Amino acid sequence: MTIEQVSSAKVFNGWHKQFSHQSTSTQCQMRFAIFLPPQAQQQNVPVLYWLSGLTCTDENFMQKAGALKIAAMLGMAIVCPDTSPRGENVADDNDGAYDFGLGAGFYLNATQAPYKAHYQMYDYVVNELPALIETHFPVTKQRAISGHSMGGHGALSIAFKNLQKYTSVSAFSPICNPINCPWGKKAFNGYLGKNSQTWFEYDSSELLKKLTDPQSFIPALVDQGESDTFLTEQLAPQALTQAAEQVGYPLVLRMQQGYDHSYYFIASFIEEHLRFHAQHFN
Amino acid sequence: MTIEQVSSAKVFNGWHKQFSHQSTSTQCQMRFAIFLPPQAQQQNVPVLYWLSGLTCTDENFMQKAGALKIAAMLGMAIVCPDTSPRGENVADDNDGAYDFGLGAGFYLNATQAPYKAHYQMYDYVVNELPALIETHFPVTKQRAISGHSMGGHGALSIAFKNLQKYTSVSAFSPICNPINCPWGKKAFNGYLGKNSQTWFEYDSSELLKKLTDPQSFIPALVDQGESDTFLTEQLAPQALTQAAEQVGYPLVLRMQQGYDHSYYFIASFIEEHLRFHAQHFN
Repeated sequence: MTIEQVSSAKVFNGWHKQFSHQSTSTQCQMRFAIFLPPQAQQQNVPVLYWLSGLTCTDENFMQKAGALKIAAMLGMAIVCPDTSPRGENVADDNDGAYDFGLGAGFYLNATQAPYKAHYQMYDYVVNELPALIETHFPVTKQRAISGHSMGGHGALSIAFKNLQKYTSVSAFSPICNPINCPWGKKAFNGYLGKNSQTWFEYDSSELLKKLTDPQSFIPALVDQGESDTFLTEQLAPQALTQAAEQVGYPLVLRMQQGYDHSYYFIASFIEEHLRFHAQHFN
Repeated sequence: MTIEQVSSAKVFNGWHKQFSHQSTSTQCQMRFAIFLPPQAQQQNVPVLYWLSGLTCTDENFMQKAGALKIAAMLGMAIVCPDTSPRGENVADDNDGAYDFGLGAGFYLNATQAPYKAHYQMYDYVVNELPALIETHFPVTKQRAISGHSMGGHGALSIAFKNLQKYTSVSAFSPICNPINCPWGKKAFNGYLGKNSQTWFEYDSSELLKKLTDPQSFIPALVDQGESDTFLTEQLAPQALTQAAEQVGYPLVLRMQQGYDHSYYFIASFIEEHLRFHAQHFN
């Protein structure tokens, strides 16, 4: 479990650093970014894991969300993994599409060749990466998880399968019901195969319907822009709220008038998400 | 003076928009970005012009500086021009270098062929763009100017030549004395020719030495990271402070321990710069 520092920059009296390491889950070199707030020089701090959307790397959120000032103030580390395995030996989409293959790992464990050799992002994000972070950095075992679009799907589906591992979950513009939208169907068919019964375990709305113990529920916050061009065809937040109502899960979904799918939307509300997670860390 | 909208995104209850237009200064299509704070829906607002560094476009500052939340709060528009003319007919560096030609206009009026046909960024930024902005958008004639690296050079040199046009000036990591550093010598030689006497009119430190009327001085703030890898060879802030001392100009230069040349540095201090400019708007 060795890691190699790729870059380091001081920011808001804390540090943004990138590291690479050989992953046992994805069987390739993975890069991740970590923001360490100034408080981490004195004490262990809790961690927000951020999962990015299609085409992103570990860099997009750190550069564009405007999150680091508030994270520095709240004393919260942020960890951004990549969105897929990468490298010469990693299978990509045959046509180089943006929504499958490299940059589009969908935070699942692929079962279909040739993808299953490396596309094990669920294991990477849920198990390997937190173990690595908790070994190498001054952090507590308190974890929150959030993400955008494909990463919102990742955050919600991972949280609903691992309620005990996280203190809270949030998402921006998540793909809420991937088994019923074009992005999700393409990805799940390619990574998981044609038997759509296997798809259910990575669908946030379906997973939510199976949660029956209110004692296990963790706080959940979702923001969705009303002017998001992907809203109707790909994101389907109503599937999520219907599932939440069905099982009495206190999920808060906020429709935000006029906002689109971009990082300008995330930047506008990231402070509220960080404060939400910080509140539940304590 | 027609402009065409390229994009529009709601952010912090204001709007980020990109426009393109045919420029009379650079004789090509130019793109710029504008942030309009929510206050602009009710009243005219003052404008901060931001000049970006080498390789940037109108997008870098808007996406990476984390400036829009504070600008929305302060009721300040921000305008980001591109860093050079662009297009198939625009001459580039012969070797495709990052520090000359496209993305590296140095905010001057070129006098040498083939660059003089389009590289008229000084006229564009000082005259054409503000006239365009003040025609098409709900802004006052109060202007501030700031920038980073090559754009810090641009902001300071433009302000020192046009003290009456701006209420304040600031810069991050500016190229303070381009006539004496590799980036500046290459650019000025290529755009202005071998007679280095013509270079003085675009050198902030040399321009500052000629300012003799304290009544005309405008507030000036510069932040420079101490861990900036370009500090010694390219940036030379001591040339600027020596010039300021020579003429009694109250320029504030702050050396920031541990910070580098990146947008993480800009993000860490942009709030202080916006508040500095807002204070002098009122």
